[in-house]
Amino acid sequence: MRTIEWHYPSGQLCMIDQRLLPGEFRIVSYGDYRQVAAAIREMVVRGAPAIGAAAAFGLALAARQSTAKDVDILREELKDAAETLGKARPTAVNLRWALKRVLSVAMLVSGSVDDLQQAVLQAAQRIADQDVVINQRMAGYGAALIDDGDTVIHHCNTGSLAAVEWGTALGVIRMAHEMGKQVSVLVDETRPRLQGARLTAWELEQYGIPYEIISDNAAGYFLHTGQAQKVFVGADRVAVNGDVANKIGTYMLALAADDNNVPFYAVVPTSTVDLSLADGELIPIEERDAGEILDLQVGGKRVAPIKASARNPAFDITPNRLVTAIVTEYGVVYPPFEQNLPEFVRDDER
Amino acid sequence: MRTIEWHYPSGQLCMIDQRLLPGEFRIVSYGDYRQVAAAIREMVVRGAPAIGAAAAFGLALAARQSTAKDVDILREELKDAAETLGKARPTAVNLRWALKRVLSVAMLVSGSVDDLQQAVLQAAQRIADQDVVINQRMAGYGAALIDDGDTVIHHCNTGSLAAVEWGTALGVIRMAHEMGKQVSVLVDETRPRLQGARLTAWELEQYGIPYEIISDNAAGYFLHTGQAQKVFVGADRVAVNGDVANKIGTYMLALAADDNNVPFYAVVPTSTVDLSLADGELIPIEERDAGEILDLQVGGKRVAPIKASARNPAFDITPNRLVTAIVTEYGVVYPPFEQNLPEFVRDDER
Repeated sequence: MRTIEWHYPSGQLCMIDQRLLPGEFRIVSYGDYRQVAAAIREMVVRGAPAIGAAAAFGLALAARQSTAKDVDILREELKDAAETLGKARPTAVNLRWALKRVLSVAMLVSGSVDDLQQAVLQAAQRIADQDVVINQRMAGYGAALIDDGDTVIHHCNTGSLAAVEWGTALGVIRMAHEMGKQVSVLVDETRPRLQGARLTAWELEQYGIPYEIISDNAAGYFLHTGQAQKVFVGADRVAVNGDVANKIGTYMLALAADDNNVPFYAVVPTSTVDLSLADGELIPIEERDAGEILDLQVGGKRVAPIKASARNPAFDITPNRLVTAIVTEYGVVYPPFEQNLPEFVRDDER
Repeated sequence: MRTIEWHYPSGQLCMIDQRLLPGEFRIVSYGDYRQVAAAIREMVVRGAPAIGAAAAFGLALAARQSTAKDVDILREELKDAAETLGKARPTAVNLRWALKRVLSVAMLVSGSVDDLQQAVLQAAQRIADQDVVINQRMAGYGAALIDDGDTVIHHCNTGSLAAVEWGTALGVIRMAHEMGKQVSVLVDETRPRLQGARLTAWELEQYGIPYEIISDNAAGYFLHTGQAQKVFVGADRVAVNGDVANKIGTYMLALAADDNNVPFYAVVPTSTVDLSLADGELIPIEERDAGEILDLQVGGKRVAPIKASARNPAFDITPNRLVTAIVTEYGVVYPPFEQNLPEFVRDDER
């Protein structure tokens, strides 16, 4: 099944609870858009494209929940719901992109309350369906960058679970594998939430792609010793100049790739590009709860002292000078990004 | 008490079991040098200076255990014991330095078997005692590099627990604090063994130095956003040219410091400098058991898939171009290290 799926008979939004993987595969379903906002915040669903689709379906739930008899009232309710959903996480721009797209449909469509509810659900479903197509197109462009025999370092999770289906950076690796190329993956475990050790490892096992988990600290060693030929990551937001906001640790990984002349690729749908931001320094960085750092156990025992405190920024900015190319659904974009990236961002039918 | 201490009444070697901290403070004692080799291997004791002292006392145990009636036979037994102890961990050169030093005493001393046993114990005790003095001297030189109000990033554990007492990089921070400077520490948790979250946090709490734990991934963010003014690390081996072998992740941390013009200091006794190696590429890198990566739990549940495999290099090499200075017991060494570092390595009485 898809990571996020609308269940038409019940009018509920279903998603895989990613907090429980790989130990348990559980589907949760929501009938209230506020539950969806909470699910995004608590990372039941995560990954920039996935939370975009989740938020879009969240608006469809808000429309369905409404008891408004008048389309204008329903539109106001949808704006409020979009406000709530939009605040769930600050860094990934896909969330706001998807909400804006669905809201603009809600503002334009004419007809009854029922027509509007239908239109909002269709707009959300379209975002989800297009996400799969977009990911597969990116995967095709990106797979051409992988050579037979490559070992690739991958950070966080950017697979099916991070999108509606297929994925971004991990989708590229999967496509290369399905094309018959020999590719293996060094999986950054990705502290603090361990999306690599938890989710990427689990996905790679499903696909039959050989992998080994490494501590994030070890990526530099493997790059320096010639044991990795490429780095592929996703992104939560890309500025016009090609600065990349992505999971914390991406910046240090990019520095290590650059220091060893290993190509560093970000794989993003153009909905991740924020044309309103000149550079990455303007991207808001979410700082999450210290418990994500401190609640770690080994052998059933907590690692950190009881009274310890922690800082927990969830993302960092990789400057464009460290990015070899950005893979989009319209092709591979090379520097200078300021000039080339906007040409790839179109608002036509994707 | 010291991290490692010879218990004279019983003739046993006592040490803090560092695997149990911070949850439990337990002293273990050994009467057999093979137990000491195992304790080094299993990281009951860790930290380059500490394992040097542990190995030296290991030879004292081997001498004490011996039933030899002849000094030449005892010397052969000590060589065998040094062989076993020296293999316990490959990267930190202090281990071999300490064994060589004690063995040379054993080869030179004349007298009875009893005299030789005494001489070996005295040589080991001298290494331990001198380690404390050396660390405090380094701390004095290093503390001058810390400004009032600095926030310092620190990797792994280099405190009292990593040495006989006091410590290297953390000793510098502690000295600055005791001199009345305001200093706070961003503590890299230091995957995979989490010596930062586990041991450094615990030590800083004892000293009353403010700290916050961060994921290793986050160091780049704090350096880039101007929230850290210095980086201090220890080392397991330093080549003549100033290349530094240290806990995995040090290289990526040094890259991030360099990229943001933040000074990066390695604090090492000169026993950590290996004059036989021209550069860091020649330093052997230990790869440890995959379980150190895979046995992580959150909420009582294992994170990685059951069938997952992992790679686990324990150290990496930071090239000298990323090292601002090396703090030794004879002063602060600046580049060019090839030229300046050998002048600081003396074999006189330390």
